Amino acid sequence: MADFPFAETSNHQVRLAARPQGLPGPACWQFTESPVAEPAEGGVLVKTLALSLDPAMRGWMNEGKSYIPPVAIGEVMRAGGVGVVVASRHPGFAVGDTVAGGPGVQEYWSVAADQVKRSGLAKIDLRLGSLTQWLNVLGMPGMTGYFGLMDVGQPKAGETLVVSGAAGAVGQTVGQLARIKGCRVVGIAGGPAKCEWVVRELGFDACIDYKAGGATAVKDGLKQHCPDGVDIYFDNVGGDILDTVLTRINKKARIVICGAISQYNNTTPVQGPKNYLSLLVNRARMEGIVVFDYADRYAVAVAELAGYLKDGRMKSKEDVVEGGVAAFPATLSKLFTGENFGKLVLQVASA
Amino acid sequence: MADFPFAETSNHQVRLAARPQGLPGPACWQFTESPVAEPAEGGVLVKTLALSLDPAMRGWMNEGKSYIPPVAIGEVMRAGGVGVVVASRHPGFAVGDTVAGGPGVQEYWSVAADQVKRSGLAKIDLRLGSLTQWLNVLGMPGMTGYFGLMDVGQPKAGETLVVSGAAGAVGQTVGQLARIKGCRVVGIAGGPAKCEWVVRELGFDACIDYKAGGATAVKDGLKQHCPDGVDIYFDNVGGDILDTVLTRINKKARIVICGAISQYNNTTPVQGPKNYLSLLVNRARMEGIVVFDYADRYAVAVAELAGYLKDGRMKSKEDVVEGGVAAFPATLSKLFTGENFGKLVLQVASA
Repeated sequence: MADFPFAETSNHQVRLAARPQGLPGPACWQFTESPVAEPAEGGVLVKTLALSLDPAMRGWMNEGKSYIPPVAIGEVMRAGGVGVVVASRHPGFAVGDTVAGGPGVQEYWSVAADQVKRSGLAKIDLRLGSLTQWLNVLGMPGMTGYFGLMDVGQPKAGETLVVSGAAGAVGQTVGQLARIKGCRVVGIAGGPAKCEWVVRELGFDACIDYKAGGATAVKDGLKQHCPDGVDIYFDNVGGDILDTVLTRINKKARIVICGAISQYNNTTPVQGPKNYLSLLVNRARMEGIVVFDYADRYAVAVAELAGYLKDGRMKSKEDVVEGGVAAFPATLSKLFTGENFGKLVLQVASA
Repeated sequence: MADFPFAETSNHQVRLAARPQGLPGPACWQFTESPVAEPAEGGVLVKTLALSLDPAMRGWMNEGKSYIPPVAIGEVMRAGGVGVVVASRHPGFAVGDTVAGGPGVQEYWSVAADQVKRSGLAKIDLRLGSLTQWLNVLGMPGMTGYFGLMDVGQPKAGETLVVSGAAGAVGQTVGQLARIKGCRVVGIAGGPAKCEWVVRELGFDACIDYKAGGATAVKDGLKQHCPDGVDIYFDNVGGDILDTVLTRINKKARIVICGAISQYNNTTPVQGPKNYLSLLVNRARMEGIVVFDYADRYAVAVAELAGYLKDGRMKSKEDVVEGGVAAFPATLSKLFTGENFGKLVLQVASA
């Protein structure tokens, strides 16, 4: 590489400055800037185009053992994203390739030779889905929904599936995929706009607005829309909604524990499901899913889901926020207030 | 039947008089007496010898939907038991046969022709185990432990199993069977006598006394005795112990929900496991077991377990209380205070 065209460019980054108590506030973040470095032999330089903002990020900010190590204080905040290769000394990547991976919250992602493999850096095919769909149905949320539903939920035609966070990234995929597999699908979401979209656009059989109808909204909605009980509950929220669904499950029901967004910003202990003995009464199962376990089968899921996008059986909605990495802290907060409508994406640059 | 020798005999019964709030007190029970009736064509009359007293009884006293209907007010309290046939007009049963079934808390159990099959009345072979072992390892607790461990827990040699209520009826079978299957076995029980017995007599690798060592007894004990984490947790108690074990589980762990005796007499809501998100982090599973689902395989389990009793690999302990049905209320209470040591049995009559 004779001329490195980014020699004068700054890479803007958002780093974790402090661990949050409750909702992450401004004190959690530090904004830094550093020169963009030319890749060494075997390395790749990616310009970030868009970042995936996910509830799981809140967990990564906590200290302590989890399914992956926490983000360290001072480290660039971890984030999945899509980008374009702007410099490469790796035979597998050429300038102009569109890629997905884990750039973190920064404008340029430099992947050293020995990190290319374990970084998850991979070329993506925009004929299978748009850039933002690669962060949604064809990305981590889609993979989570696919394997959580298919491997843990094990849907059978004619069964009833309930999914919370129905209009969110994982919920969209889960509900539509369950519908395609022949299930009756009932969503739970916040507000009439999300509920209406889930039913009209995504073809759910019904959607319960947990914010409407008072304290018994979910209970009443389940009674009305799941007359044959609940065979699969795909849980993204935890808390009271999980507890309520537990009162309506069928024998041999499967509860997929994918997340618990209602509990992530607690400053008090997590609310355990007080109705968990419904598992005993109903010989039911509650099981956790972590998407990384299925990495060797992502390609299979992407192929199937891309087929549904192409033939129109599956739709997707991304809530794309502009503003670059500086807008990251405020944008992340939208997830926890439920302000996002669809998969939350932060646009960092244009291709 | 020319002479019915029980024409002058009274059948003493304990009936449910009121649904308990918290621990069942004297007001819950009504003592009745009625004549012993001669069996009609196809019927069987059983003299109760011993009754099985089980934590599940507390659940049967509550109103509301569960895995079986509640005992109705005024009904003879439901109980499993063993007895001897004292009169029979059924071709499958002869006077003198030793039988097991669900006599309820009464001295004589009259089984009508159309109820013989669904009552579960069955002859038992005292060469396979003693009368009280037929209420323990070879009875419902043993079946619960066997299928809960083998079908839900799915033990593999080299794994670590933890079982609470280790000295209780289900716990004995679970721990010994897991040991036989090659697991490291750690019990949790209350008091040094039970813990010592479980290790010395039953061959558990260790037993944690949850009553000793303060609030962190279980946490500390698990750290010490499960250096490789917990692969299977067989839970009979719920509450804080379940929560603590959840912090020590391994990837793909199985939590068998068999009971929650710490919660059965709550007058406040059940304590949900606030650490349930450990299921997510560890891709682990929590699943309920109800023994009745395995009725068509009881014979297989009995044969295997009787073999272990015979060759000495399995031992059993029953806590036999004398005093007849009148002693039922006080004896039942021992379960909830943990006073019983071994499978709690109420002796009703001598053979």
